[in-house]
Amino acid sequence: MILTVTLNTALDITYRVPSLRPHTSHRVTEVTERPGGKGVNVARVLAALGHEVTVTGFAGGATGRVVREKLAAAPGVVDALVPISGATRRTIAVVDERTGDTTQLNEPGPTVTPTEWSAFQEAYEDLLPSASAVALCGSLPPGVPVGAYAGLVRTARSFAVPVLLDTSGEPLRRGVAARPDVIKPNADELAELTGSYEPLRATQDARRRGAHTVVASLGPEGLLAATPEGHWRATPPTPVRGNPTGAGDAVVAGLLSGLVEHLPWPARLTRATALAAATVRAPVAGEFDRGAYEEFLVRVSVTSAASAA
Amino acid sequence: MILTVTLNTALDITYRVPSLRPHTSHRVTEVTERPGGKGVNVARVLAALGHEVTVTGFAGGATGRVVREKLAAAPGVVDALVPISGATRRTIAVVDERTGDTTQLNEPGPTVTPTEWSAFQEAYEDLLPSASAVALCGSLPPGVPVGAYAGLVRTARSFAVPVLLDTSGEPLRRGVAARPDVIKPNADELAELTGSYEPLRATQDARRRGAHTVVASLGPEGLLAATPEGHWRATPPTPVRGNPTGAGDAVVAGLLSGLVEHLPWPARLTRATALAAATVRAPVAGEFDRGAYEEFLVRVSVTSAASAA
Repeated sequence: MILTVTLNTALDITYRVPSLRPHTSHRVTEVTERPGGKGVNVARVLAALGHEVTVTGFAGGATGRVVREKLAAAPGVVDALVPISGATRRTIAVVDERTGDTTQLNEPGPTVTPTEWSAFQEAYEDLLPSASAVALCGSLPPGVPVGAYAGLVRTARSFAVPVLLDTSGEPLRRGVAARPDVIKPNADELAELTGSYEPLRATQDARRRGAHTVVASLGPEGLLAATPEGHWRATPPTPVRGNPTGAGDAVVAGLLSGLVEHLPWPARLTRATALAAATVRAPVAGEFDRGAYEEFLVRVSVTSAASAA
Repeated sequence: MILTVTLNTALDITYRVPSLRPHTSHRVTEVTERPGGKGVNVARVLAALGHEVTVTGFAGGATGRVVREKLAAAPGVVDALVPISGATRRTIAVVDERTGDTTQLNEPGPTVTPTEWSAFQEAYEDLLPSASAVALCGSLPPGVPVGAYAGLVRTARSFAVPVLLDTSGEPLRRGVAARPDVIKPNADELAELTGSYEPLRATQDARRRGAHTVVASLGPEGLLAATPEGHWRATPPTPVRGNPTGAGDAVVAGLLSGLVEHLPWPARLTRATALAAATVRAPVAGEFDRGAYEEFLVRVSVTSAASAA
């Protein structure tokens, strides 16, 4: 199975309102809820692609119960979340039906105790022997040490399990130094890590800092990959209009599935780009449109990119 | 005990954000949750005044579980909520720390099935013999017939239990015709019922429609009561600055507690006005400030009001 780690899981709630006007009262016309956090989103896409996938991380409180109930009902995703005493956070996306714009309210998440963090590390070590690959995704909740991902990368490497790291800021900086197999920063995360907004230069710099492969997600411009086997750009056929929520998680799922299927890099990048575009295109945020995915698969262009060195 | 009925219970969530800006992402700095819905709020004030109080209505789903857990932890409030299959609604108050303003997002609430509505009516009849008074509070959830309060008023009267009705629109219009002991409309609700924004005229018209006593809550201007024993105005000493959330529920609690203690009307109105002012003054929305309450108790002025007839 593929293992995804989400230390800051969430219950993602979407409210539709006719028009959001601050300092007034709104009747919500539609409420949808689903388990969230980057690794959970990645798992959902992997399951939809036919992979066996296990999610771990933390869940607690009433919101954690809802997350687990909904995961139990999700086909193909195995719940290996570690219980904590704090309550799993909610995120609320308020969609303005008039403009289509979204206003996001994110709870800070529970504080994880040292005992809970130790319990997670044990659970992680128990899961790794069954894993064909592991993805470490998203922000760290309060209480988890900033070097957490660096430790989890090293543990995965000690079990010879390929590890993808998708985070930002100091946890990314430290995690990269632990030599993960893949990182997937967006342009801002990559610039924060390397100091450069020039993607070719920045991806190569990130490799020098420790990442074996760097796949930068550049929004509508697609992906730029710096790998030990070469550099590639993957671009969607036309600008894809829609909601970019979850496109980055779809890229991670595409890269991981291609990794465990031993696809060559251009095929992995094609899949990841097509999944991202089909996620932007889908009517529901974070889902991907399977018809669009299959259409994009044959229309993504992958070209060799020159080294900036 | 005093019985309060909240057919549309809620989990009231308050988010503090540094500044609410539509179509951007916000990190919530503080999350508070408490059981809500008007009758639940009334019960909390009654319990704080030392009364035994039982809450009934509906609770369901994960949010209903949280409401019940929190009620179990609330001193002096007995939970007699009736389980339903739908999920209890959430309300979210987003407080902008820069301006102090609140943006409200209210979920619509679950649909109550005919079987669940019947189960509630049975539970209500089982509770009435132990009740010294009953308050019927708030909006009706989908699935509950619009004449619901009229029926509940008649049932209370058949058990000779004094009944206060605090709702609006068509449920109020129908409820009034069933001859409740007290209604407590605000100026808008009273105008919708009677067609008049002239409070003295409107309260008397509402009495002619069936309410034995009408206590109109007029915001900063206090209360206007039209009773079989006379007409009174109760006014807070000075304009009270703060958050009016829950002031109406505090009025209901003041009136009910005065009723079961057989206080004369001026004393009931003094208590209700002081509680409302102390609720506006309190730092936490919907709570009342006990020191301010005791201070206001001796400073509220109650004067006889001339009849408009």
